[in-house]
Amino acid sequence: MIYLDNAATTMKKPPQVGEAILEALQHMGNSSRGTHAGALDAARSIFATREKLAAFFNCPGADHVIFTSNITESLNIAIRGLVDPGDHVITTDLEHNSVLRPLYSLEAEQGVQLSFAGVDEKGRLDYDAMEGLFRDNTKAVVCTNASNLTGTVVDVKRVADMAHAHGALLIVDAAQTAGTRRVDMAELGADVLCFTGHKGLLGPQGTGGLCIREGVEIRPLKAGGTGVQTYNRQQPSEYPTRLEAGTLNGHGIAGLSAALDYINEVGVDAVEAREAALTVRFYEGVKDIPGVTILGDVSDCIKNGRLVKPHAGIVALNIRDIDSGEVADILSTGYGIATRPGAHCAPRLHEALGTKEQGAVRFSFSWFTAEEEIDAAVEALRELAG
Amino acid sequence: MIYLDNAATTMKKPPQVGEAILEALQHMGNSSRGTHAGALDAARSIFATREKLAAFFNCPGADHVIFTSNITESLNIAIRGLVDPGDHVITTDLEHNSVLRPLYSLEAEQGVQLSFAGVDEKGRLDYDAMEGLFRDNTKAVVCTNASNLTGTVVDVKRVADMAHAHGALLIVDAAQTAGTRRVDMAELGADVLCFTGHKGLLGPQGTGGLCIREGVEIRPLKAGGTGVQTYNRQQPSEYPTRLEAGTLNGHGIAGLSAALDYINEVGVDAVEAREAALTVRFYEGVKDIPGVTILGDVSDCIKNGRLVKPHAGIVALNIRDIDSGEVADILSTGYGIATRPGAHCAPRLHEALGTKEQGAVRFSFSWFTAEEEIDAAVEALRELAG
Repeated sequence: MIYLDNAATTMKKPPQVGEAILEALQHMGNSSRGTHAGALDAARSIFATREKLAAFFNCPGADHVIFTSNITESLNIAIRGLVDPGDHVITTDLEHNSVLRPLYSLEAEQGVQLSFAGVDEKGRLDYDAMEGLFRDNTKAVVCTNASNLTGTVVDVKRVADMAHAHGALLIVDAAQTAGTRRVDMAELGADVLCFTGHKGLLGPQGTGGLCIREGVEIRPLKAGGTGVQTYNRQQPSEYPTRLEAGTLNGHGIAGLSAALDYINEVGVDAVEAREAALTVRFYEGVKDIPGVTILGDVSDCIKNGRLVKPHAGIVALNIRDIDSGEVADILSTGYGIATRPGAHCAPRLHEALGTKEQGAVRFSFSWFTAEEEIDAAVEALRELAG
Repeated sequence: MIYLDNAATTMKKPPQVGEAILEALQHMGNSSRGTHAGALDAARSIFATREKLAAFFNCPGADHVIFTSNITESLNIAIRGLVDPGDHVITTDLEHNSVLRPLYSLEAEQGVQLSFAGVDEKGRLDYDAMEGLFRDNTKAVVCTNASNLTGTVVDVKRVADMAHAHGALLIVDAAQTAGTRRVDMAELGADVLCFTGHKGLLGPQGTGGLCIREGVEIRPLKAGGTGVQTYNRQQPSEYPTRLEAGTLNGHGIAGLSAALDYINEVGVDAVEAREAALTVRFYEGVKDIPGVTILGDVSDCIKNGRLVKPHAGIVALNIRDIDSGEVADILSTGYGIATRPGAHCAPRLHEALGTKEQGAVRFSFSWFTAEEEIDAAVEALRELAG
């Protein structure tokens, strides 16, 4: 199988990920539950991973790195834990349902007010319009770092400056960028940075988290055993314990730790450069195929065969008016090429781009994608469109 | 290390657990995200595990088996998703903070009324007193299947009959019983059964779930991407999707599935019998050591060298008035024996048993615990108490 669905989950992981999980399965106890060697081993492994993540995302401290089971949980924790009834929140039409659905819930249940910054026909965020959305009660802006549908990268720093000028917090969804480009929460101006372990970070499923700027106080979504302060009726107030109830996924976190080592070894800039080259190769291959329509702003980002503006390793397209599911099925069954058709949990962006009915066929790349795989996908599309 | 902290997490897993995770790491895509081989592989693996769990716990259907990252999340989902402001909830002094803290939060934030069924000096639940706690607005009873501190097994069927007679739902915490004895949700009368994967089920950390009786409607705790019904602003109403937002821990679930196969192969009755034999061996070894005080009702459960009443594979004790942490430290550093001292996230039971200050040293066993390990622990205690 030629796997080009890396925006959903990276399938190929560095070999040391599996080795680290196996190793952890052999001697890891329960972190923060006891002081014997097994428990300490778990605690040390988990803390070391917090430290690595803090360094990786430039989070102010390892204790402000919270582990979750996936980025959806991270976003739910950040959004529900910061927004109060009657608050106003700004988000964008680029967002995934992991942002939209928690916000819609707060709107329906708690009278939270929502405003959406729109996009143009290429899915580029309208920053000027966003500026006009702020109100006195704007509590937070929730914004993706890159669209999971088109790969469009948002100028998060610009959004952060607007948010902070209006006294609002910025929550960033880094699902499509963590591990594949430099994501520095201080540089971006993120007050909360949400990430997942199983995509660009090349770790196992069941891992993710959030990095919290010093001074940002998030209410817990869940409460429960913490191994400390047993007689406190509330969840302890200290991070990370405040937001982590119950036994952590120590085995998965050990795998994520090994994945981080791998990325640090090859260098995140090298990963970015490789994904950029793959994106250019794919784009150049398909852009002139008659009948192929490419979504988003990738055409703006590529000049003379290289990426001149940031873009994630994602290209979404359609062939004439053929249903995206049909194209993906033929690619899968006829060519052994795995892509993702349909709506990609990004309802507002499909509506903005006019692809609600047709969906789109998304091709997404990873560090492990080979040039030959890109070429095979281009060739398949040429045949299909012919 | 002699690992006797299996009530926190089982350290030794069947070898096929690691193999299954490795295998999944090699070809698993993202369940319910796309129809290519990788995604279908993930979807099939996860659905097959739901079916196994449904059969294992006698849950009415695989679609009513929900995956979570641990039982704390399961309990938070069940409790927060069923209890409304102004409702009354009954629970017990045997509960873990994974039950108590969510309930205390609801009490503080939403005016939920709480009542606690107490225990006697051996930590046995006072069922008659519980009967008197029901009110017209009692919505639910939340009750453990077995104490994580003393190993005392609760007559859940009796609690269920009371709850149902009063029109209340029963939420069962099976953290200490799932995988180590027959847990049949219909037989127990559980409306919601919460379980974790990394203890008696011998699976990896990061797995757990809840089984829901047909007709019980739980509100989602989290919302987000589901891979289906993208244009629905709410979380889809169908189980299991309703309660599962974001990418599941497919790699961990593959490990849990292999662990279930292992338990089904040896037979859960054999596991129960083995843990019973280990418990008896340990109890008989320590009960007459001068200075050793055993907590709970284990003495009632053992007659003539065998278990005559159900008891989990847990024995908690103290040596005279020595701090439990000190005893556990000496056991760990001097004898290489891993136990769990302190409060075990069970504040009300320690208060009821008068061990709030001292805590207790908990010894907990698993299918993989060897007789020689039990004997070494007994010998160490004899030396320590001498």
